[in-house]
Amino acid sequence: MLCAMGEFDLIARYFTRPAARAVLGVGDDCALLQPAPGTQLAISSDMLVEGRHFFADADPFTLGHKALAVNLSDLAACGARPLAFTLALALPRVDEPWLAAFSQGLLALADAHGCELVGGDTTQGPLNICITVFGEVPVVHGKSQALLRSGAKAGDDVYVSGTLGDARLALEALRGALALPPALLAHARQRLEQPTPRVALGQALRGIASSAIDVSDGLLGDLGHILRASGVGATLDAAAAVNLIASRVHPDWPEVAIDTERQMEFALSGGDDYELAFTAPASVREAIQAAAGQARAPVSRIGRIDTAHGLRLLDEAGKPLQRRYASFDHFA
Amino acid sequence: MLCAMGEFDLIARYFTRPAARAVLGVGDDCALLQPAPGTQLAISSDMLVEGRHFFADADPFTLGHKALAVNLSDLAACGARPLAFTLALALPRVDEPWLAAFSQGLLALADAHGCELVGGDTTQGPLNICITVFGEVPVVHGKSQALLRSGAKAGDDVYVSGTLGDARLALEALRGALALPPALLAHARQRLEQPTPRVALGQALRGIASSAIDVSDGLLGDLGHILRASGVGATLDAAAAVNLIASRVHPDWPEVAIDTERQMEFALSGGDDYELAFTAPASVREAIQAAAGQARAPVSRIGRIDTAHGLRLLDEAGKPLQRRYASFDHFA
Repeated sequence: MLCAMGEFDLIARYFTRPAARAVLGVGDDCALLQPAPGTQLAISSDMLVEGRHFFADADPFTLGHKALAVNLSDLAACGARPLAFTLALALPRVDEPWLAAFSQGLLALADAHGCELVGGDTTQGPLNICITVFGEVPVVHGKSQALLRSGAKAGDDVYVSGTLGDARLALEALRGALALPPALLAHARQRLEQPTPRVALGQALRGIASSAIDVSDGLLGDLGHILRASGVGATLDAAAAVNLIASRVHPDWPEVAIDTERQMEFALSGGDDYELAFTAPASVREAIQAAAGQARAPVSRIGRIDTAHGLRLLDEAGKPLQRRYASFDHFA
Repeated sequence: MLCAMGEFDLIARYFTRPAARAVLGVGDDCALLQPAPGTQLAISSDMLVEGRHFFADADPFTLGHKALAVNLSDLAACGARPLAFTLALALPRVDEPWLAAFSQGLLALADAHGCELVGGDTTQGPLNICITVFGEVPVVHGKSQALLRSGAKAGDDVYVSGTLGDARLALEALRGALALPPALLAHARQRLEQPTPRVALGQALRGIASSAIDVSDGLLGDLGHILRASGVGATLDAAAAVNLIASRVHPDWPEVAIDTERQMEFALSGGDDYELAFTAPASVREAIQAAAGQARAPVSRIGRIDTAHGLRLLDEAGKPLQRRYASFDHFA
């Protein structure tokens, strides 16, 4: 329930809006949601904690955006259309300017995706943001159209959307571990603080992609989840993946002085990308590009699925890379 | 997603079980849930924070029970049948005995209600438990059978299930503010730490009760939500309500030395009761008692709904009580 005692009551005001799709919105003991006939509900829950997922001085507008974005990214990975979400929020104190900015960032992204806030809870406590999001996936002839991690098959292509490593680049710069030109820092920081969930792409890939996941913990770690769930392995063109980092692909910054090893680590295991990694048979390459075009989300082919378990990285010359990356050991 | 890096991975083990009703259980980017045709989904989310909702040294088994119980209580208030829930958990450190006991308490209650854990998130941070629960409500001839706060009408009876004030009694005793006989403390503490959500009663009241809410913040405060949502007022027999406190109704403890004023405060605004407060037309008194019998949940009639706004309390002689109670000012 979104009811709390005393001054925390006012928090609800920042988030209370008239119900649209949901039958009942914020305010009763439960929200009531009526999924369309012939659909399944996709559900995902993420908890963001100060100091671990964001800095204590994080801008509240972008924090509101990101808190919902990481959840929408999970819906995207399933190919689900966003419907609604609940927000549970623990706050050390009632800070109205902070709440106003946080709710604006949150609700702007929610509105952009037609995703309605239908309930939640507010309480006093160390800052903690827990969002549970609901999406709709069609069921066609009794078969769910949800994209799963478990459908990759040997011979499939491996793809990733957008660019990789930008969020990690920003994080390192904000930590003072490297220097970036202001325009590049601004770009990378935008990717870290206001990631774009690939909601349209996920839906466009339904019926075409054989598996999908969102890249939240780094490409290698997340691709590893697909490999394990599908019982397969993969060979990746590491050079193709590292070329996706903003510092390489953006024409304005061809010469940023970050050594290749570091760039490779950012791209392959940087995390916080919220792109989609997915697989598809080689026979549907045109359909994949058409889906990417329709969703206005660039996608790059970066490898192939093998029968042999484990993950192999090839350098530009096609030779195996020896170096291991942060999230690589988990599943090699 | 229930994926976390490093040692937090192992947390997932305590909560991972084979999927039953849900199409997909814990492990993919989203859980997939297929509500039965002709039903609505009822959704509620609650966040429990150490120091505010439970003591730092709270027994993890009972904490696991309570974290789900407060959510099931919201479903009960809507008349929904529990289906599934997600768990997001922030923990300061991985403490395996704590996790084992917490998950046992949580999953024992979940199993008792056929409510399946379908997903969630685990992270490091100050202890925080966020559960989002999903239930099913039938839609009959296009009309939702959900119990709402907004259906109370002048002339309706006001009821409450079970007993009131026990949790507050335990809290005061644990704080050292009053002394209780050991057997009464044990009983009251059980009510505080392992409340019984009135799930069967909520479902039995569908189609009979005109409005319902669960008593989490205290009877007067929560009944106030019904009055506001329904645009009505109420007159309560305060003596009938205070007689519901365990120290009065339990035959073993007829003489507990707590002054009447204090008992009245515990019963009327103590909170943490997780009973149902509800209204129903006087014409269905027999059906209410039949529903209570079927659900094995005693219910007591404690007042009536009036056209005049506000909440009036009458003493045993039928005279208005002057004293105001904690949660009374909010809506008087």
